[in-house]
Amino acid sequence: MIHPTALVCSSAKIDEGVEIGPYSIIHKHVWIRKNTKVGAYCELGLPTPLAHNNQLEIGENSVIRSHSVIYAGSKIGAGLHTGHHVCVRENSDIAEGVQLGSRTDVQGDCSIGEYTKLHADVHVGKQSTIGSFVWLFPEVLLTNDPMPPSETLLGPVIEDYCVVASKVLVFPGVRIGNNAVIGAGSVVKSHIPEWKLAIGNPAKPACDVRILRLPDNPRQKAYPWRNRFTRGYPKEIVQAWTEQAQATGKSK
Amino acid sequence: MIHPTALVCSSAKIDEGVEIGPYSIIHKHVWIRKNTKVGAYCELGLPTPLAHNNQLEIGENSVIRSHSVIYAGSKIGAGLHTGHHVCVRENSDIAEGVQLGSRTDVQGDCSIGEYTKLHADVHVGKQSTIGSFVWLFPEVLLTNDPMPPSETLLGPVIEDYCVVASKVLVFPGVRIGNNAVIGAGSVVKSHIPEWKLAIGNPAKPACDVRILRLPDNPRQKAYPWRNRFTRGYPKEIVQAWTEQAQATGKSK
Amino acid sequence: MIHPTALVCSSAKIDEGVEIGPYSIIHKHVWIRKNTKVGAYCELGLPTPLAHNNQLEIGENSVIRSHSVIYAGSKIGAGLHTGHHVCVRENSDIAEGVQLGSRTDVQGDCSIGEYTKLHADVHVGKQSTIGSFVWLFPEVLLTNDPMPPSETLLGPVIEDYCVVASKVLVFPGVRIGNNAVIGAGSVVKSHIPEWKLAIGNPAKPACDVRILRLPDNPRQKAYPWRNRFTRGYPKEIVQAWTEQAQATGKSK
Repeated sequence: MIHPTALVCSSAKIDEGVEIGPYSIIHKHVWIRKNTKVGAYCELGLPTPLAHNNQLEIGENSVIRSHSVIYAGSKIGAGLHTGHHVCVRENSDIAEGVQLGSRTDVQGDCSIGEYTKLHADVHVGKQSTIGSFVWLFPEVLLTNDPMPPSETLLGPVIEDYCVVASKVLVFPGVRIGNNAVIGAGSVVKSHIPEWKLAIGNPAKPACDVRILRLPDNPRQKAYPWRNRFTRGYPKEIVQAWTEQAQATGKSK
Repeated sequence: MIHPTALVCSSAKIDEGVEIGPYSIIHKHVWIRKNTKVGAYCELGLPTPLAHNNQLEIGENSVIRSHSVIYAGSKIGAGLHTGHHVCVRENSDIAEGVQLGSRTDVQGDCSIGEYTKLHADVHVGKQSTIGSFVWLFPEVLLTNDPMPPSETLLGPVIEDYCVVASKVLVFPGVRIGNNAVIGAGSVVKSHIPEWKLAIGNPAKPACDVRILRLPDNPRQKAYPWRNRFTRGYPKEIVQAWTEQAQATGKSK
Repeated sequence: MIHPTALVCSSAKIDEGVEIGPYSIIHKHVWIRKNTKVGAYCELGLPTPLAHNNQLEIGENSVIRSHSVIYAGSKIGAGLHTGHHVCVRENSDIAEGVQLGSRTDVQGDCSIGEYTKLHADVHVGKQSTIGSFVWLFPEVLLTNDPMPPSETLLGPVIEDYCVVASKVLVFPGVRIGNNAVIGAGSVVKSHIPEWKLAIGNPAKPACDVRILRLPDNPRQKAYPWRNRFTRGYPKEIVQAWTEQAQATGKSK
């Protein structure tokens, strides 16, 4: 299942069921766990002196699409799915079930929580902290330098369950509270409290997201989205969400 | 004309005069029509269960530049020109003479009309409908989810002869009428009538595009652009435009 | 140091100490000067009829990261550093010490001065003129067509020491004066005088940049940045900056 044109370092650890596509390159100190599929023209485990260690672990059942580059020095959980032409730099702590869309750039020294989904062309600046079950839509940009150029890197913090819509620009050091929703095209210059919808330039909290309804089904509350959108999440997580929703409903 | 390092499936149909560059991969069920040139590191015909069929047809006289990826399940007309690092997903119906700039991402389940030109870094969300003779400039983003994340995909509709300038964000389900022009950096949140110039966030119709003049030649009306810009279009189309312009002039 | 899978034209000139990674392609008339490192899947010297000449010279001690494409017809000084998936078109005059972040697109017929740094996803339209010691941050877009589509290309001019923050859109033909700073997310529609901070859509001069202080150290003036940020610049340049700062201080 390793294509004959792939260049796999003899000291790389390739578990059973792994597929490696044509012309891909696997450097030393890379551990690809079982059943992971690596497309063509990928380069995994690129060494860099900036990496805190020279290891790269990619969890089982991952799919890494063609032309992607992942540096040494990161640990990536099971079930990673990348698009094409993705770049992940060193010291990235990426939990289970994460999705990185095509051309997404994770610039390193950052963390991404479980089941967080980054759509295409998302740019995650260094020192960013992204929680679990977060959605970042196309061309979201997380910046980190408050007075460029400088040596001060203040990565944004995006808390659990946040939804950041397309083309949003997030300023350095900004915290977006859990379950907040940022409207497309907004510029987030200051902290956004949890559970708020924020829109505009600069983005300002407009309302509680829990009053929003689906446009094509006004009887359905839009947020928290986990009460209506569960495709692709593990059964036990969906079960927990359901129980939580029922408990919240009863307590009202 | 097939480079010896290219991996071409024996069941792919490669017409005469086709060139395939070094290290490129052609999967099965791909039909590359005559005189098309495929650069290096391209992967054409990637299978996916999301494709309505497992075919990929690429029309004659096309140029596909290096590092591009085109999935199975699409039909692409003659004279396609792509830049580098392009990605076209399944079920894309792409007419003759289309241009897709570098890093353009056509996410699938969409249609692009004839002689439409997408510049670099254009992102076409699923379910988008783009007419003929349209211009989408760099970093135009067509979104499709009205209440993200959801299962409702409402692709925008961009009608014939529209010009959408750089860094424009188009909201889900929005229709931009034929011959409309959207100013650079605008955010299009609602329908734009035909023949209107619209600018701003949110984009609002400012005037009829037919009153605009070229800045460096104020005697020349800027729009419809086809009366002053014809480079790269087939002779018979340009001829039809000329006759149409004359007829319009006389009828006034 | 040339990987056995690299395809290097016998007429290319490869100086001593050069490394060429797996599967890379070096066309004829390319001159790679000493100690330059080319990553995997790069294609250097792509011919095009648009090039004023069919040469490509890449200066010594450069680093060109994987999946990058550089056309024939450009001259690039020593110490070029690119990210991954970069594209540089023909007739680009790139001075010493330039940095081009991942996916940066230099569309050709342009000039970039010494030690200018383009971060990831910067898009430099044709006919752009970028000075020396300039910083362009992620997703900066320099446009060039004042009435699209047209044959009139008016590239912006970005003068020395400018800082253009993330996601800024620069309109065709706009001049940004030396030492100006453009705030993130701005849209620059008209000329910005030297030494001004400009923000907004449209970007308007807000104040002289020399009154700004570092947020985490208010006793330190933020600009000119060269008085506080010198990492990565040659010793003699830093020395000149220091002397200049002292002279300016005394003259006050």
